[in-house]
Amino acid sequence: MSGVFGCFDRTGANDVSKDLYYGVFSLQHRGQESAGIAVNNGGSFLLHKQMGMVTDVFDEMTLSALPGFCGIGHARGGSDNSSGTDGIQPILIKSRVGNIGISCDSVILNADEIRDELKNLGAIFQSSTDSELILSLFSRNRITTDDCEHAILNMMKEIKGVYSMIFMTDNKLIGVRDPFGLRPLVLGRTGERYFLSSESCALDAIGAEFVRDIEPGEIISISEEGISSYFFDEDNANRVADGHICIFEYVYVARPDSTIDGTEIFASRYTAGQALAKEQPCDCDLVIGAPDSGNAAALGYADALGVPYGMGLLKNRYVGRTFIKSTQGQRELAVRMKFSVLKSAVAGKRICIVDDSLVRGTTTKHIIRFMRENGAREVHLRLASPPVKFACCYGVNADKVQDLPAHTKSNQEICDMIGADSLGYISLESLKASLTGIHCKQCSACFDGNFIAGKAENGGDN
Amino acid sequence: MSGVFGCFDRTGANDVSKDLYYGVFSLQHRGQESAGIAVNNGGSFLLHKQMGMVTDVFDEMTLSALPGFCGIGHARGGSDNSSGTDGIQPILIKSRVGNIGISCDSVILNADEIRDELKNLGAIFQSSTDSELILSLFSRNRITTDDCEHAILNMMKEIKGVYSMIFMTDNKLIGVRDPFGLRPLVLGRTGERYFLSSESCALDAIGAEFVRDIEPGEIISISEEGISSYFFDEDNANRVADGHICIFEYVYVARPDSTIDGTEIFASRYTAGQALAKEQPCDCDLVIGAPDSGNAAALGYADALGVPYGMGLLKNRYVGRTFIKSTQGQRELAVRMKFSVLKSAVAGKRICIVDDSLVRGTTTKHIIRFMRENGAREVHLRLASPPVKFACCYGVNADKVQDLPAHTKSNQEICDMIGADSLGYISLESLKASLTGIHCKQCSACFDGNFIAGKAENGGDN
Amino acid sequence: MSGVFGCFDRTGANDVSKDLYYGVFSLQHRGQESAGIAVNNGGSFLLHKQMGMVTDVFDEMTLSALPGFCGIGHARGGSDNSSGTDGIQPILIKSRVGNIGISCDSVILNADEIRDELKNLGAIFQSSTDSELILSLFSRNRITTDDCEHAILNMMKEIKGVYSMIFMTDNKLIGVRDPFGLRPLVLGRTGERYFLSSESCALDAIGAEFVRDIEPGEIISISEEGISSYFFDEDNANRVADGHICIFEYVYVARPDSTIDGTEIFASRYTAGQALAKEQPCDCDLVIGAPDSGNAAALGYADALGVPYGMGLLKNRYVGRTFIKSTQGQRELAVRMKFSVLKSAVAGKRICIVDDSLVRGTTTKHIIRFMRENGAREVHLRLASPPVKFACCYGVNADKVQDLPAHTKSNQEICDMIGADSLGYISLESLKASLTGIHCKQCSACFDGNFIAGKAENGGDN
Amino acid sequence: MSGVFGCFDRTGANDVSKDLYYGVFSLQHRGQESAGIAVNNGGSFLLHKQMGMVTDVFDEMTLSALPGFCGIGHARGGSDNSSGTDGIQPILIKSRVGNIGISCDSVILNADEIRDELKNLGAIFQSSTDSELILSLFSRNRITTDDCEHAILNMMKEIKGVYSMIFMTDNKLIGVRDPFGLRPLVLGRTGERYFLSSESCALDAIGAEFVRDIEPGEIISISEEGISSYFFDEDNANRVADGHICIFEYVYVARPDSTIDGTEIFASRYTAGQALAKEQPCDCDLVIGAPDSGNAAALGYADALGVPYGMGLLKNRYVGRTFIKSTQGQRELAVRMKFSVLKSAVAGKRICIVDDSLVRGTTTKHIIRFMRENGAREVHLRLASPPVKFACCYGVNADKVQDLPAHTKSNQEICDMIGADSLGYISLESLKASLTGIHCKQCSACFDGNFIAGKAENGGDN
Repeated sequence: MSGVFGCFDRTGANDVSKDLYYGVFSLQHRGQESAGIAVNNGGSFLLHKQMGMVTDVFDEMTLSALPGFCGIGHARGGSDNSSGTDGIQPILIKSRVGNIGISCDSVILNADEIRDELKNLGAIFQSSTDSELILSLFSRNRITTDDCEHAILNMMKEIKGVYSMIFMTDNKLIGVRDPFGLRPLVLGRTGERYFLSSESCALDAIGAEFVRDIEPGEIISISEEGISSYFFDEDNANRVADGHICIFEYVYVARPDSTIDGTEIFASRYTAGQALAKEQPCDCDLVIGAPDSGNAAALGYADALGVPYGMGLLKNRYVGRTFIKSTQGQRELAVRMKFSVLKSAVAGKRICIVDDSLVRGTTTKHIIRFMRENGAREVHLRLASPPVKFACCYGVNADKVQDLPAHTKSNQEICDMIGADSLGYISLESLKASLTGIHCKQCSACFDGNFIAGKAENGGDN
Repeated sequence: MSGVFGCFDRTGANDVSKDLYYGVFSLQHRGQESAGIAVNNGGSFLLHKQMGMVTDVFDEMTLSALPGFCGIGHARGGSDNSSGTDGIQPILIKSRVGNIGISCDSVILNADEIRDELKNLGAIFQSSTDSELILSLFSRNRITTDDCEHAILNMMKEIKGVYSMIFMTDNKLIGVRDPFGLRPLVLGRTGERYFLSSESCALDAIGAEFVRDIEPGEIISISEEGISSYFFDEDNANRVADGHICIFEYVYVARPDSTIDGTEIFASRYTAGQALAKEQPCDCDLVIGAPDSGNAAALGYADALGVPYGMGLLKNRYVGRTFIKSTQGQRELAVRMKFSVLKSAVAGKRICIVDDSLVRGTTTKHIIRFMRENGAREVHLRLASPPVKFACCYGVNADKVQDLPAHTKSNQEICDMIGADSLGYISLESLKASLTGIHCKQCSACFDGNFIAGKAENGGDN
Repeated sequence: MSGVFGCFDRTGANDVSKDLYYGVFSLQHRGQESAGIAVNNGGSFLLHKQMGMVTDVFDEMTLSALPGFCGIGHARGGSDNSSGTDGIQPILIKSRVGNIGISCDSVILNADEIRDELKNLGAIFQSSTDSELILSLFSRNRITTDDCEHAILNMMKEIKGVYSMIFMTDNKLIGVRDPFGLRPLVLGRTGERYFLSSESCALDAIGAEFVRDIEPGEIISISEEGISSYFFDEDNANRVADGHICIFEYVYVARPDSTIDGTEIFASRYTAGQALAKEQPCDCDLVIGAPDSGNAAALGYADALGVPYGMGLLKNRYVGRTFIKSTQGQRELAVRMKFSVLKSAVAGKRICIVDDSLVRGTTTKHIIRFMRENGAREVHLRLASPPVKFACCYGVNADKVQDLPAHTKSNQEICDMIGADSLGYISLESLKASLTGIHCKQCSACFDGNFIAGKAENGGDN
Repeated sequence: MSGVFGCFDRTGANDVSKDLYYGVFSLQHRGQESAGIAVNNGGSFLLHKQMGMVTDVFDEMTLSALPGFCGIGHARGGSDNSSGTDGIQPILIKSRVGNIGISCDSVILNADEIRDELKNLGAIFQSSTDSELILSLFSRNRITTDDCEHAILNMMKEIKGVYSMIFMTDNKLIGVRDPFGLRPLVLGRTGERYFLSSESCALDAIGAEFVRDIEPGEIISISEEGISSYFFDEDNANRVADGHICIFEYVYVARPDSTIDGTEIFASRYTAGQALAKEQPCDCDLVIGAPDSGNAAALGYADALGVPYGMGLLKNRYVGRTFIKSTQGQRELAVRMKFSVLKSAVAGKRICIVDDSLVRGTTTKHIIRFMRENGAREVHLRLASPPVKFACCYGVNADKVQDLPAHTKSNQEICDMIGADSLGYISLESLKASLTGIHCKQCSACFDGNFIAGKAENGGDN
């Protein structure tokens, strides 16, 4: 997963880098492994990127060395198919049509095939990233120099996958959302300054106005002349309604204060918690959220159930890149460092933990044990999403299917494994129903195996 | 403020540095400016310390270079009277009695006087820290080489102030809590491994057993031979009951899962919230906590009032050392980066924000405005501590008294200043009553001006 | 200018990185801006490169992370047509025929043309380096997967310029010297470990045996199967004798202990000094060399003239990347830091300074003044190369022709400019005659304007 | 060994840090392990120091953060009795008389005794450096606040050893040279800006005028009011003539262009080479200097002998902190990296290598072997100093006496050990005679065992 952000100032004001910084910073939850910003400074492209979190990669000095009226930024997670420094974005190239920069959040399913094709045509690759592949393909599809948008359209016809991309050319900022609309991308503005962002929370952060979601298959092109859109499927009148946003954005990925395709994340999680209470009530004294991602659903659950919502577990806000993560055999200590149990809230009580989802269950197992160590009489687990039975080949969870307990184990087996007294999931129907006001359909392949954008050729066991 | 941590393994096991690391890490909330660990490796002292947070200062490699059976650690905040690299602790010296290391959380009120006296006797100072002063004074008070404890006692008779200190000598680990018991210090153990820590949460983190609070004026000495205690005031039978722990530890400073002098922090905050509801009810639709420190009280407030507790504001967990803090004129943007408003939870509602305290009110003002921008109909503020009318000369808040709104302004004036519809504080009696099970009295000088340990000579306007 | 180095161990011993390190270190004089090493570790390519000198870029740890049986290294100067981090070599790519790495010392005169052609075919460029261009061109010229050598031959037919290149493929190390033989490249070995190097001094450094110079237009391919050669011009029986090595390698560039195309650099400089004495004698008390590059010629000059050779000027061995270089208006101070005058050797004497060449004359001017400040009665200048009248479009000097004093000024004008009492150059004939035992012709375009490998299309004023 | 440098601008111009930088840079040969500069900025002292060479420690930014009208700098070698970061100078303290900074090049023989005495009086030590000891002792000896100079005098009466020190107080710069005058210290000026420096070369570097050597036992005090001197032994009229400068300054330590106590280093080395030729002639074809320190003597030797002086061995100017130094078992490779043999100059010849001294002989052994590998017929060694039979307890060589071949071995045994055909030393008389114009006597303890300033109590085997 990644966060992408772009900015174009139509007045030519040369100071977009601070907005890019704050924008990327606000998308940090989508990727903490590396960060980068590239700007268009009157035709010459400048770039700063490296491994690390946004606040480590940039400071006043590096930002002040990035003047520009247009720019793109990127925050990358570690789970995509490139390793280490290889895949730090944005990437800049020079091609027949001039400078091009790209910042993208993507999984290209037929990347290997296309790479081989391009290699056979003589192309060389300096990394194994989707971004370089996309630029190489784009470059080959460029027909006339005045029309990047159609070159992008042609490229979209060859690639199979899910993506939100932002291109920066010598005089344009171009955003692209995949035809299935699996990845989010929104448009914002402040006066004549336009923004593209993975999520709306980054617009709020910089005080920009949310304009709209980019449509599935839309290519939005922002330049001094104006803003225009092109569509992968021009003829589809129901483009928006036919989209399939990734349902895990609402369950876990997106920031609670973002609104994606018509639904605020926090509200959807709270509502899911309420629905969960109806489907999977629990005889307990206290409802607590698995911090921080389970809190919204836990609150909804408690409210609907009429049981007190409490804090029983706090997340240490200083855990970050602490080395303890990497030390095998110290996993338990790592979890202990990450969470604090509030004994007074827990002791002697029947606790119901509400979490957003159960993927591997490792952390949950430790949390339940901590509860018991601190005197909880019973510990129940309720999940605001259905069993995760399929590995997402679109990059949302990087797990192998055999590592997903819900793929093979019964509820009772999972209860035994994690030490819970009972376990309950929301149904997929109720989860979908909790997305009040949503404009489109959802991809819920991780729950139902329906991979809307296809699967990778070689990805049988994904 | 600082966090201090020490460890002595009576079996001589030479691997205390990992425990020190996790201990200091768990005290990170007491000080984020610098961190350090010193160990006694069979008589030779080793040290690693630098500016930065614990996880930045240490990694596997630096820790593996710190073997030792005894050690001390430190996490320092920025508000004490030393600046920058000058005051990074621990400090190590060689003196007549051998190597001495110190890690301390202190405010010495008569530091300038003592420093001048020592200078007149020929002492030199390489920093302006209390720690160096204490070591210099200690060193002068050492009478015989076998008795560090009495030298410490002599030193305590000369200094005036509040402190928790941990000394490491060639063969001992010695903890000291000031005679007023203003600063916390606890003893823990795992088998023959003993721990001293500012707060009990660090013991939980490393799986150690909490033994007891160090008493006011106690000098606890841990060596291979055993553990023994000395007291500033040997004859006082009511030493514990006569102590005065800083009440702000419960209000704001300590970690919610710590227990200090008999009371769990979280429980005291929740109870204070309940009491606040009785004293200062509010006609509202939703109670939200000012994250994160107001959450416990908010929950108690909502529960007591029978109004839903909700989330309306989230704290960005990636805010850390981001440079935006230092940029004057960007304060509002900084606050915007720090907090996310959940529109769906707030819009159209009468909101009651519960916070732990109101010191300057700057952040609160922005938060209230964000609430209104997101559609809150009314915004009320309730505080789980009384008006902060006095600047703490013991280092808990670093503000000048004239910067404290409650020192000069009426409630209405403060409401106007911060934009709240109403404002209510808990009474000092109720706050004190919320400390269920506490063993001792409290210093509440910031609320009532009663500076239990005296004031600094030159500190008139503190 | 750059230094290139490669190694292939035919026994498969996986430890070539230390030899690469020492090899590149020994070529440091050819380029001090950046350094890098790439190895083939059983099919996967590993790379470490960054800005800085070899000893700064590598340490034990980085080298131990570079196991491999084959590898290439690079030391790059700052004068080529790429800027900053953009052009750090080696470069690695994946292409149709697998992994390819390249390390090259080149000036491609028709780079812009070829780049445009390739862009029109859809190629993208992530830098403005020759290396990326060469790999892109090579990749397009690959006909069958088993024959990199002919692909290189085809590529050589399209590029115009001077170069020494080392390619690393999945199973070969391939060295290439341009058809004019302008850049040096030598072959060495130790048992079954083969080396390619810009200069022979790197072979001596690692204790390897010098085998022979690579021939002009030769492609030498080293693999487990053996060593084979291909030639740009197969039919030319006089390939070696028709080569034109850059004469400035002998004058200034190469290390004194290297032997290139049959002539040891130090010996040629000494001999040139002797010849200079015959052509341009000087009535003086002491001959001193402009350190360090003028010393060899100065010694020959003094010996031939029968005048004492002395030291009068020493070069500070700590001058390196000192920031003083970059401070405009502090040039004189910079020169002062760089050189120490030995007053006792200079005072009251008629001094003859012998230098290798006079390009801009800026440093020389300061040196002559220092001599006079320290009491020299007369200061004469003799140069062991002819007047530099033409800017080298092959990258040896980066100066514009109008900045070369010898292009426009008379000897007397130059004397006045630099403050010398007299000035004398060796003739081109004598310089060429000093290259005892050389196998080939020389390019002396900087002296006579005869640009043997052609000129750049856009390089009119070079 | 260390280099010390100080500057006081009597006009109050606040920009001495650049002069300090260039001064310390010019003394880099005296110590390459760490560097530091401290300045007096209108009463507040600022400091920047760290491990590394001067050019690594400072850049434009760090220097611009050091405004001041007075300052001290330091370049420290690795051989003194402090390890690592512990001993980086300057050191700053606050004492009864205000701020004091110190930069010193010293060996205090009775340091342990004094340290113990001071500890017994209650002093604490944060390092094991002489500098901290001296400041502690000084501080105790301060009688009245207006008279630092007499406090220094009192301190000098208690310490036993050799030193050049520069103190910086709130309003003065004070230089001190030990009563034996073993370590050099000079005074320079440019207008009203005064300088103190270990060597005169640093004055030349910044274009300052050399005023005079500081006298043995002199305390020179520079302030706004003027310059005044105090003497350890006021009554000695022959103070200068009774001094004993370290003879190794001329042999090896000092920079060739420095003049110490009346004699230019280069001239003395050249003269010693001439004298060596008379005492120890050699039947050879070529005289070469062991680079770089043997070059001056080699030139004198060749000139006196009438045999050609040549280059046969060059020192790689990029060798610096290369890691190869630390790798045991790679010593030979390290030497190979450090030196280049010029085969054409050496092959078939009878070579006489002239070096400044033979301490351990390890490098010499390799050099002689390289000569033979490159075809030298004979290799003779001549040394411009007598046999080094005693370990210097004043820090000039750090070797144990048993590691000095000349302490136990005959000339023939040493010849065998290093592989030389013959070996010859200059006599001590001739060496002393080569110091033309010197004002004082010399300490030649390393040659004759006469330790003029006494020996360390515990230093029996030195």
